[in-house]
Amino acid sequence: MEELSFAVDCNGGDYAPLEIVRGGILASRELGYKIFLVGRREEIRSILEKSGELGNPLLEIVDAPDNVGMDEPPSAVLKRKSSSLYVCGKLVREGKAQGLISAGNTGAVLAVGKFVVGAEEEVERPAIAVALPNPKGKTVLIDVGANVDSKPRHLLQFAVIGHTYAQEILGVENPKVGLLSIGEEEGKGNELVRETYPLLKQSKLNFLGNAEGRDIYAGTFDVIVCDGFVGNVILKASESLGLAVVQMIKVEIKRSLLAKLGAFLLLPALNRFKKKADFTEYGGIPLLGAKKPVIITHGRANAKAIRNAVKVAADFLVQDFNSKLVKNIRELIPEEVRV
Amino acid sequence: MEELSFAVDCNGGDYAPLEIVRGGILASRELGYKIFLVGRREEIRSILEKSGELGNPLLEIVDAPDNVGMDEPPSAVLKRKSSSLYVCGKLVREGKAQGLISAGNTGAVLAVGKFVVGAEEEVERPAIAVALPNPKGKTVLIDVGANVDSKPRHLLQFAVIGHTYAQEILGVENPKVGLLSIGEEEGKGNELVRETYPLLKQSKLNFLGNAEGRDIYAGTFDVIVCDGFVGNVILKASESLGLAVVQMIKVEIKRSLLAKLGAFLLLPALNRFKKKADFTEYGGIPLLGAKKPVIITHGRANAKAIRNAVKVAADFLVQDFNSKLVKNIRELIPEEVRV
Repeated sequence: MEELSFAVDCNGGDYAPLEIVRGGILASRELGYKIFLVGRREEIRSILEKSGELGNPLLEIVDAPDNVGMDEPPSAVLKRKSSSLYVCGKLVREGKAQGLISAGNTGAVLAVGKFVVGAEEEVERPAIAVALPNPKGKTVLIDVGANVDSKPRHLLQFAVIGHTYAQEILGVENPKVGLLSIGEEEGKGNELVRETYPLLKQSKLNFLGNAEGRDIYAGTFDVIVCDGFVGNVILKASESLGLAVVQMIKVEIKRSLLAKLGAFLLLPALNRFKKKADFTEYGGIPLLGAKKPVIITHGRANAKAIRNAVKVAADFLVQDFNSKLVKNIRELIPEEVRV
Repeated sequence: MEELSFAVDCNGGDYAPLEIVRGGILASRELGYKIFLVGRREEIRSILEKSGELGNPLLEIVDAPDNVGMDEPPSAVLKRKSSSLYVCGKLVREGKAQGLISAGNTGAVLAVGKFVVGAEEEVERPAIAVALPNPKGKTVLIDVGANVDSKPRHLLQFAVIGHTYAQEILGVENPKVGLLSIGEEEGKGNELVRETYPLLKQSKLNFLGNAEGRDIYAGTFDVIVCDGFVGNVILKASESLGLAVVQMIKVEIKRSLLAKLGAFLLLPALNRFKKKADFTEYGGIPLLGAKKPVIITHGRANAKAIRNAVKVAADFLVQDFNSKLVKNIRELIPEEVRV
């Protein structure tokens, strides 16, 4: 495979530009890929200088002074052609970079992914998947926010995208696919779910029927499909529940010295668990079905997370994910319900 | 207030009839209410006999041999007139009982609540609320499963129902109301949310705008409004996440003796937390907006949970919840968007 190169948005994220640039350095040093550091030239130059990396031939600064803030409407990015995010998208569209990584405004990254990088052949709507931990392994939840008001045929495509992700990236054979609903039997759920069910049944996916909210963290399914509105609120509610539980347990612990000692002894086990559940460890969430890897990292991404996100992008290319996805859409979705 | 009486479904739930009947006994003994024990006469009689309660004047057996199973479609209950659940509904509709409690098929309890007990004046669709714990107190999430494919005007009513619940039952003054969406700004979200936003803005509720999934367990809002499909999957995902976290932490703990000791020392603190987060401690989830209290308890409800559910039902009556709800719907919803 030719030398891979990636565009890294150095203006986006809580720790931009320092941690982002450092992440780019790590990616070039540890992974050997070419990294376009897209952002304010002088800032980036100064960080490279202090890190002794000015002579690193794998790092190239691309000047892009503008930035789409976290509170701006995502669509703004499409008009802000000198924003770092837009420039990243353009580098990918023009074939100079093979993927982009951003810790910035998630909606804006999605907009660039959908409209600047564009959707892969056969894919009507790219979608975001997360691999959530459960006691047996991982469950892929898709879509978690790239699309709202999805139609049944979109959910059918999300299922195939999730299937391909589980199979090719997570290594699950013949993934068990479920449709998120509020009851197990066919016919339970809202209109969208009731109309999607027969499409999934007709497909060649390993469709097991409706999944319930309780299945998400139980390991019953490998892939659970839902509209992006539903997936997004579940994902964010889960994160906040995790934080709240830790905080409430801390309050209880503070009440007793013995419990404090207990918590201290438990620390290594809790840290191992935290590592397993930590989304940033995985490096980032890919917009699946885009023409090239578009990786959204957490706003709090540090250098390590950015480096890991570059690795995620490269894995998609190395494994030729998109060819397999297109093949699966053609083979698993029956002709009559194809877009 | 006249003597209160409640119908308790003795056929429904994992520990029926024994724990349910025992719960009825507790309610009569500790709370002093009359309890109709609705189920298979001989079974109930035998439990009362063994408990030395045959002579308890506050307990009355009502024979209802049939039961709607957990896997049956909820609507089946409306045709099964000798099912314990239907008979409970009839006792309430006829004014013999002032509320009903069931640990059975949730959908069937909702169907009886909506169609046998019926909706209160001004209420178009009764809804289910849960008070979820957060580090600062509680957040009411409504609707969590009574309605799918809700219209904007239904969400507006859910907001008023949630407001009334937070104010009257949880004692929150001027509750902060949020609309669940996937972005904070007006205009973010799906079609339903975008159309509901202006209605809430026009209302006299203390509407703070869109809430995100992360706000559910953060304590930012007192009431968060959503369609029942979304609320239900969030609620069930949260329960399963809690279970999964505990299980994964246990696996990590098993790896080390020190951690085991730590866990042992932590036990009292964890138990206090568990009690705070335990839904069964609260006794049950009310179908708000029904003419009379309809309380859905967990399928695993034991005697204590049933007794607590009777208490919840009585509280709604004692506090005259429904009059306040009707008044709020009339006062807080502007004429032009009223049903």
